[in-house]
Amino acid sequence: MEDHIKLNGNGTNCKENRAKTELEEFDALFPELVKDLTNIGLKDAEISDAIDWFKEVIEYNVPFGKKNRGIAVVTSYCQLVTNPTDDDIKRARILGWCIEIAFSLIVDDMMDSSITRRGKSCWYKKQNVGMRAINDSNFLESALYFLLKKYFRDQPCYKDLLELFHDITHHTVIGECLDLVTSRPQSTVDLSSFTLDRYNTIVRWKTAFYSFYLPVAMGMYMAGVSDTDAHSKAKSILLKMGYFFQVQDDYLDCYGSPEVIGKIGTDIQDNKCSWLIVQAMMKGTPEQRKILEDNYGRDDESKIKRVKELYRDLNLTHVYTEYEESSYKELKTLIEKCSGNLPKEVFMAFARKIYKRQK
Amino acid sequence: MEDHIKLNGNGTNCKENRAKTELEEFDALFPELVKDLTNIGLKDAEISDAIDWFKEVIEYNVPFGKKNRGIAVVTSYCQLVTNPTDDDIKRARILGWCIEIAFSLIVDDMMDSSITRRGKSCWYKKQNVGMRAINDSNFLESALYFLLKKYFRDQPCYKDLLELFHDITHHTVIGECLDLVTSRPQSTVDLSSFTLDRYNTIVRWKTAFYSFYLPVAMGMYMAGVSDTDAHSKAKSILLKMGYFFQVQDDYLDCYGSPEVIGKIGTDIQDNKCSWLIVQAMMKGTPEQRKILEDNYGRDDESKIKRVKELYRDLNLTHVYTEYEESSYKELKTLIEKCSGNLPKEVFMAFARKIYKRQK
Repeated sequence: MEDHIKLNGNGTNCKENRAKTELEEFDALFPELVKDLTNIGLKDAEISDAIDWFKEVIEYNVPFGKKNRGIAVVTSYCQLVTNPTDDDIKRARILGWCIEIAFSLIVDDMMDSSITRRGKSCWYKKQNVGMRAINDSNFLESALYFLLKKYFRDQPCYKDLLELFHDITHHTVIGECLDLVTSRPQSTVDLSSFTLDRYNTIVRWKTAFYSFYLPVAMGMYMAGVSDTDAHSKAKSILLKMGYFFQVQDDYLDCYGSPEVIGKIGTDIQDNKCSWLIVQAMMKGTPEQRKILEDNYGRDDESKIKRVKELYRDLNLTHVYTEYEESSYKELKTLIEKCSGNLPKEVFMAFARKIYKRQK
Repeated sequence: MEDHIKLNGNGTNCKENRAKTELEEFDALFPELVKDLTNIGLKDAEISDAIDWFKEVIEYNVPFGKKNRGIAVVTSYCQLVTNPTDDDIKRARILGWCIEIAFSLIVDDMMDSSITRRGKSCWYKKQNVGMRAINDSNFLESALYFLLKKYFRDQPCYKDLLELFHDITHHTVIGECLDLVTSRPQSTVDLSSFTLDRYNTIVRWKTAFYSFYLPVAMGMYMAGVSDTDAHSKAKSILLKMGYFFQVQDDYLDCYGSPEVIGKIGTDIQDNKCSWLIVQAMMKGTPEQRKILEDNYGRDDESKIKRVKELYRDLNLTHVYTEYEESSYKELKTLIEKCSGNLPKEVFMAFARKIYKRQK
């Protein structure tokens, strides 16, 4: 391959080129992985109906994300090793796809009663799917371990990777549970539990470990970096980045354009502990808080509108913009302080994708 | 512990005693495992609400099964080693509990619209649970890997156990998918797909690997038996046993007493590819098959009654009793032929628990 990109982690230009091309290379690998996962249906013809169904599941749900997480595995890995072979890079991409499989999104949509994701109908909303989407989510999870076994079982990092996936899945499930416990049913809306502390905890456990620490940690284990101190430092930076990402996600749920973000926000009617409601509860007068208590968490257009008006009165767009600026500065300071022996670019490359995004 | 049972696998009397006492010993371990799993909430007070919720999930859903699978790990292991230490036996019991966690039952009930399990309301049917039961199922799955890591990461069989759990989960998910694909929605009932071949496949993938091969395979790996041939032979015996178990389960779904089996059967209205409908389609006249097509798979009391009448006309109770007899004989022959270097009692002990059960 003459024009095969060089992923040696040196030089800004090289990195900039790679960022563009890497997405294409990454995407090009997907059909091969689908083939790996559907080949078991060729060996066992009796299960071919299930494998045909799975093919639909993976092709509908997996390859349309932004792939920031998947690419971050490759980028991080390539920053950490000097001369990765083509095989190494392929393996890093496969790990990236293991993260992109993101099996829990299917069931998150069910638990949130979401309608659309990535500009399409949510999987469970499709005809003939419904509740069986739960099994499809488990099918995707199994697929991930199938791929890990196929491509990593002889690698020294195999056990670390398995444990990492287990641990981070555990964190994500705990975060989701906390989110669900905090967003109670509509009859008992009680916004007093929507504190900034609770918000921080949900975000860290539900999102930041999976979407930010996991990809970089995988790159690190692949590169042979497994010492606790390095992981702990990386974690502190990446969890902060993940936190900002979720604040932004909450902001876009209300203020993003559905055509751009690919979904219609439902945080207000879902009674979600979103950054916006937490800010509104902190900044509002007792009267304004009363209005929020009366209108938040109900699936009623006029009540949703009332909440959005109040967000406008409190100038939350401005609060957000200020937060974005200060968060970016803080992050850069943290990277300076905490990156230790790891190249700062591991974190900066990821950060650049997140800040100022529109979707 | 003076009265600690000796699990050296020698002598019939010892085994008979153990079978009774082992259940008590096994049960006694459960609170300790719950403690392990909820202790992470003590370290991280911020997630204590999620941990409190999880405690309810595990205590409601896990400890009320028949525990045949869990106990089978211990029994198999003790048949395979001569002098297990107390620690070894404890570890075998922990593996048994990992199987008993059976995280997919919660979501199986949701996909089947079941009402009760083990004599109680299904978890998702409880107030304040509903769709969040999906996350609770994933929470239990994570708990299983947490326990494996805590108690097995330094054991030589750790990697084998992890891969075994991943593989068998993959099998189970494929079986469930095939089951769901075969039981189509009510508007398109088409019993022609309910063939004995399809039935065999669903049972093997969905049930037999998890409930029969998995417990014995865990005992084998713990005892250091990892060669492919031994596993392949054990598999052939255990999948046959699992097949019989499912036939019996289908029979009890229709003919078992709800007070005894702990649930109200819903296979007929759920359009399930059950052993009874497969037999009825094989043995019925074209007219009788037409009646089945018109009445099966509808949530309507009079139609359910019509199907049951036809089962009676075809004398399926007798067909079942004959099948049970011949299956047990075949199984004993298979054990003679295939157990290889493994003690036959590994399989016979399991078989005795299954045949002639009432629930």
